[in-house]
Amino acid sequence: MMWNELTEVQQQEVQRQLQIIKRGTAEIIPEDALKQKIVQAVVTGKPLKVKLGLDPSAPDIHIGHTVVLQKLRQFQDLGHEVQLIIGDFTGRIGDPTGKSETRKQLTEENVQHNAQTYQTQLSKILDFTKTTFYYNSSWLSALKFDDVLKLAGKVTVARMLERDDFAKRYAANQPIHVHEFFYPLMQGYDSVSLESDIELGGTDQTFNILMGRTLQGAYEMKEGQVAILMPLLEGLDGVQKMSKSLKNYIGIDEAPNEIFGKTMSIPDALMLKYYELTTAVSSEALQELREGLAAGSVHPRDAKLGLAKEYVRMYHGAEAAQEAEQHFITVFQKRALPEDIEEMPISVNLLEAGQISIIKLLVSLGLQTSNAQARRSIEQGAVKINEAKITNIHESLSPQDGDIIQVGKRKFVRIKLG
Amino acid sequence: MMWNELTEVQQQEVQRQLQIIKRGTAEIIPEDALKQKIVQAVVTGKPLKVKLGLDPSAPDIHIGHTVVLQKLRQFQDLGHEVQLIIGDFTGRIGDPTGKSETRKQLTEENVQHNAQTYQTQLSKILDFTKTTFYYNSSWLSALKFDDVLKLAGKVTVARMLERDDFAKRYAANQPIHVHEFFYPLMQGYDSVSLESDIELGGTDQTFNILMGRTLQGAYEMKEGQVAILMPLLEGLDGVQKMSKSLKNYIGIDEAPNEIFGKTMSIPDALMLKYYELTTAVSSEALQELREGLAAGSVHPRDAKLGLAKEYVRMYHGAEAAQEAEQHFITVFQKRALPEDIEEMPISVNLLEAGQISIIKLLVSLGLQTSNAQARRSIEQGAVKINEAKITNIHESLSPQDGDIIQVGKRKFVRIKLG
Repeated sequence: MMWNELTEVQQQEVQRQLQIIKRGTAEIIPEDALKQKIVQAVVTGKPLKVKLGLDPSAPDIHIGHTVVLQKLRQFQDLGHEVQLIIGDFTGRIGDPTGKSETRKQLTEENVQHNAQTYQTQLSKILDFTKTTFYYNSSWLSALKFDDVLKLAGKVTVARMLERDDFAKRYAANQPIHVHEFFYPLMQGYDSVSLESDIELGGTDQTFNILMGRTLQGAYEMKEGQVAILMPLLEGLDGVQKMSKSLKNYIGIDEAPNEIFGKTMSIPDALMLKYYELTTAVSSEALQELREGLAAGSVHPRDAKLGLAKEYVRMYHGAEAAQEAEQHFITVFQKRALPEDIEEMPISVNLLEAGQISIIKLLVSLGLQTSNAQARRSIEQGAVKINEAKITNIHESLSPQDGDIIQVGKRKFVRIKLG
Repeated sequence: MMWNELTEVQQQEVQRQLQIIKRGTAEIIPEDALKQKIVQAVVTGKPLKVKLGLDPSAPDIHIGHTVVLQKLRQFQDLGHEVQLIIGDFTGRIGDPTGKSETRKQLTEENVQHNAQTYQTQLSKILDFTKTTFYYNSSWLSALKFDDVLKLAGKVTVARMLERDDFAKRYAANQPIHVHEFFYPLMQGYDSVSLESDIELGGTDQTFNILMGRTLQGAYEMKEGQVAILMPLLEGLDGVQKMSKSLKNYIGIDEAPNEIFGKTMSIPDALMLKYYELTTAVSSEALQELREGLAAGSVHPRDAKLGLAKEYVRMYHGAEAAQEAEQHFITVFQKRALPEDIEEMPISVNLLEAGQISIIKLLVSLGLQTSNAQARRSIEQGAVKINEAKITNIHESLSPQDGDIIQVGKRKFVRIKLG
């Protein structure tokens, strides 16, 4: 279909879809083909089939996973259909060598349970009227040896050894077992079976997804699927890819306060990336936020509060979001203090009408050695009572049991009247 | 079983078997295990299962193939049993990439027909009371994808790439398709299925046969099969491995005269190897022949006539052997002449009482330019009529239609009286 054969409305629709789909992507291979497929969909009214493979052994979805899920949702909002493949065939086999920790064999029951969990969690992000679940055992377990050989005949060993992890292991003389070549082949064959138009994944899935494109071509489909590769999201540590095993994740099924608190701990530098890739915030709002942060008119902490609130809203609703924010402010204040603060008695005899000057208090508690030193600390803003900074050197207080007096970053005492 | 636990008779029997089995072998891996297996067989009276795989696409057996077949026959003569595997599963698949000429897909009918041919031909060498034929499709076509993955999980990619041809192709950036890894795996799995004790093959089969040993171990058999590797037999050219495609072979199903003639064309240097590896001539007789040739008391041509006659006897019987020898002597003489000899008319007017002198004949036919030259040629022994050397310069002949006159190595004419 030539571009010029489209009506202007159709052209605009294609452009609109392309723009939305491209947002935040790391790579689209090949981009031409994506455009061509959208043109086809717009002209024929036939939705595209957009595929995502799910690991049957890890059903706890975290914010890192939602990068691709949000993209799928965008496709659905544009009228396209989503194919979710539960890789139960692979899961049921486990690791034939018995050496891999991450490829434990799953029972039928495990798989069923994990699939249930997926459905519950994914319903929070995807439009289930445009989502179909598949188990790849439906077609893979039916393959016989000769079918498998046919499949294996479509690719070369050299191509396989180009996959990053294989290349590294081969170079380092670490064993790669022959069956491992079949994981990408199976994933690719799923695309052949389902005639997917597009497959989504993180950039670490590039090889596997392009395998689907190759295999579709080899099994004589006119054109192979398009790979849409999303950036990997760094976890709370700001460095490593978010993953359950590294414990640097925010699970979408976690309690509101957990989600909120964890979100507040992400490094400022990553905030815009999280916004762009894992929320439905519009491109315009995102641009505004980006400019606000750059100009200093938006405080990073406020932007992060907004993100945390948005996550809780997405996965637990607006009310829970409100509550979590409130809870966080309280908890956060407590958290700013060390866990075990020494209790220090202060004689009521020192009080005059229940009051004591701040300087006298600091010296009496032994937090400062002289009035002059106490005064300097206050002037430097280093003195806080119950997290509130004291700025007036003449301040008089009514100390209560449990009040926390802080000087600098390290000195804390808890008052005990006696 | 410890050697000392055997009776003396048993020890002698083991030694006898070992000696016969080792004759002519290129390598036995591992040799210890072979001895152990023979001990076991001698003590328990349970015959060993000795396996050979047959290529289902090439049923024409030639002398090169008989190297392993003779070894199998020796095993049978020692009381052991032979497992012949027709690799029909592989044959029916052909080459999934469609690129290999040598892996054409065979129909059920082809396979049946080829198996028939094998049986007919092999019955000339093997003892069919101790031979069982198997089709490897019986177990391989029943494997499903998960079985295949289990099989592939037993070996590493690096091990596969150690196979000589794979290593070379990989280094030269020539494609190796992933399914090719399965040819050795299938061959090895055959040994697992049949619980073979020993597998025979040429040295070019070392990798594949050791794969059977590995897989038997991996599928938890106590000890893997022993590989007995036979030298490759050079063909008629004396350089390349005997093979049908190189047309340097002697087929055992060829006509007696063909077998005889081809055998006479093998280089002298290979004769003893042929004797040792492809005939049932005893080790003593072989030793005698070796010494006779070395001492010059046996002429290589006679030894070769003996070999040729033995082949015809083995594959067509004693009478045919006698006839072929006779025929060869005749044919060989004809063969010394070129195929298309120019016919030259000679006028009967030149004859006197039907006769002509040899010198006049040579000059008249234009084979020599002068009487002096003709005389010199005769004196040098360069002139022949019908293969018989003319030595008398005064000889007178009665030429007949079709007589062949030869001068030197290159000049021939056929006489046409006119």
